[in-house]
Amino acid sequence: MTEPSRRRGSGAGAAILALTQGDPAGIGPEITLKAWLRRDEIGLPFCLLGDPDLMRRTVARLGLSVPVERATIADAADVFRRALPVAPVGDAAAAEPGKPDPATAAATLASIEEAVRLARAGEAAGLVTNPIAKHVLYQAGFSHPGHTEFLAALSVEPGRTPPHPVMMLWCEALAVVPVTVHIPLAQVPGTLTTELIVKAARIVDRDLRRRFGIARPRLALAGLNPHAGESGSLGDEDAAVVAPAVAALVREGIAASGPYPADTMFHAAARTGYDVALAMYHDQALIPIKTIAFDEGVNVTLGLPFIRTSPDHGTAFDIAGKGLARPDSLVAALRLAARLAARPAEAAA
Amino acid sequence: MTEPSRRRGSGAGAAILALTQGDPAGIGPEITLKAWLRRDEIGLPFCLLGDPDLMRRTVARLGLSVPVERATIADAADVFRRALPVAPVGDAAAAEPGKPDPATAAATLASIEEAVRLARAGEAAGLVTNPIAKHVLYQAGFSHPGHTEFLAALSVEPGRTPPHPVMMLWCEALAVVPVTVHIPLAQVPGTLTTELIVKAARIVDRDLRRRFGIARPRLALAGLNPHAGESGSLGDEDAAVVAPAVAALVREGIAASGPYPADTMFHAAARTGYDVALAMYHDQALIPIKTIAFDEGVNVTLGLPFIRTSPDHGTAFDIAGKGLARPDSLVAALRLAARLAARPAEAAA
Repeated sequence: MTEPSRRRGSGAGAAILALTQGDPAGIGPEITLKAWLRRDEIGLPFCLLGDPDLMRRTVARLGLSVPVERATIADAADVFRRALPVAPVGDAAAAEPGKPDPATAAATLASIEEAVRLARAGEAAGLVTNPIAKHVLYQAGFSHPGHTEFLAALSVEPGRTPPHPVMMLWCEALAVVPVTVHIPLAQVPGTLTTELIVKAARIVDRDLRRRFGIARPRLALAGLNPHAGESGSLGDEDAAVVAPAVAALVREGIAASGPYPADTMFHAAARTGYDVALAMYHDQALIPIKTIAFDEGVNVTLGLPFIRTSPDHGTAFDIAGKGLARPDSLVAALRLAARLAARPAEAAA
Repeated sequence: MTEPSRRRGSGAGAAILALTQGDPAGIGPEITLKAWLRRDEIGLPFCLLGDPDLMRRTVARLGLSVPVERATIADAADVFRRALPVAPVGDAAAAEPGKPDPATAAATLASIEEAVRLARAGEAAGLVTNPIAKHVLYQAGFSHPGHTEFLAALSVEPGRTPPHPVMMLWCEALAVVPVTVHIPLAQVPGTLTTELIVKAARIVDRDLRRRFGIARPRLALAGLNPHAGESGSLGDEDAAVVAPAVAALVREGIAASGPYPADTMFHAAARTGYDVALAMYHDQALIPIKTIAFDEGVNVTLGLPFIRTSPDHGTAFDIAGKGLARPDSLVAALRLAARLAARPAEAAA
């Protein structure tokens, strides 16, 4: 691997990652402190955008040896060696671990907005987000379907096509993209279209080239039905919807193949045959990666005009404030963001 | 582990397994010979019910050092030490590797029928089946939906409730049962009922007690939807269909729990929390087990009046006769059948 800290971010002059606070009543503050303790593993410094007092209270509660220091994004890299740098954004005074409170929603959203601003301005090399709880934000008037859609909305530029964010779950052993995501299983067959698959696959192909540096990404598409439909006897969508998407992608020069029976795609030998698997629905993608990499999975959003990663778990209110939260996935998310930021951006759209 | 060869089969006096021939144009003959070469791993002898000439031709084609000897089920255990015992059933003279032929269907079916007869008569301690190809059998007039349903039909006893076979996929690390199996994904939500889940779970509970010797089997039920429906926002079946099944099972004294989000059920730490996972559809069950145990998975049929296991792969006509087939799954199936046969049957229904 290259040494990310000596290289330039993708389109950015900065060599620092912006980390959002997430829901202050969740495990975000705790895993942020624990990630700083593992800072030698990450490859780039990071700056938390949040409430320094919240972090100091968390240090005191958990008895962690983490100095917390106010910083600006410009001096955070220097601070990072001796303390967790926190660029003050929002007021999380109301936050109690495990007790989500709409009074903190403004601070949560302000952290995300500032992170996007910094990433788009080139002041941060990439953006890593701590978990939020949508229901808390909804009570405070938030109206986006989720975290990722909010990031996309913040990235709209006048006169350009709005970003189409695509969620990829990544670990060293496997990358998977669910083409449909948070919808009931019964709605999957009706939602899945050739166009939707092609649209997602194009973004995956482009971002694996320009962000991951894979010259010709190999995309393996899963079938929707058992045995990929078994020649139509177990459902016709694989022949009618998925196969035409593969054909269309191949015509565009994308190294797509499938549809494959999903159950035989994810063992170690099969995984050597592709760079990313496109699954047709949530559990088809999430089951294999969480089975093999439960603590180290990273959520990467493709299709945005900046690098964005996040841990693949939620706020975990049930264990917040107890010192039990593992920072592995956040460390993996920071490390992947650093690795992607270390690559010069290629063929930006 | 106990020493199966010194113990009695479940309800059977025999200490030998009956192995069916499967489709003679598939990899069955090859993996049978290779399994005999690994006979020290299995724990019980096995007797092939098939065509000795087919096996000799396969030995010659592949250059394997396996003596083949005609036997009866009664003397097969003695033969097994020096040669593969074959109890002659049917004529597979028409069989060519990789070229399925309806002319062999009668031999394939006769082998299965004889195996069931031996198992039910107590002349075999259990039954292990090589893969068949339904489309070949259909051309010859076979009318059952599949292998397992054929076995169930052969097991009907006058005046008793017909068996309700339940497929379990098993490896040392994980056991999973798909409640719905070979149907299009779009039909899963409409097919899944509380009654169907409860019916399958009762059989799983009973057979894990009496065949696997687990005193109080822990059954973990997966949700149908992403995040098990997330309180209804991602589908209502988890609250309306799956949760009532869990409640009904608990009322019966069965250690059932769930519904759980399927993506977080299958990593190593989660697997310690249950003895078997009940998944709501094919890929939800098959993805995790084939991801972690692709070559060693075993298909176990619960709910039959005898022990039945099989490898969890198909006929693999594309590689038949080439010497490439791996016997791992058949060896695992034979070994599991031997292990189950070694237990005294408990609380037979």
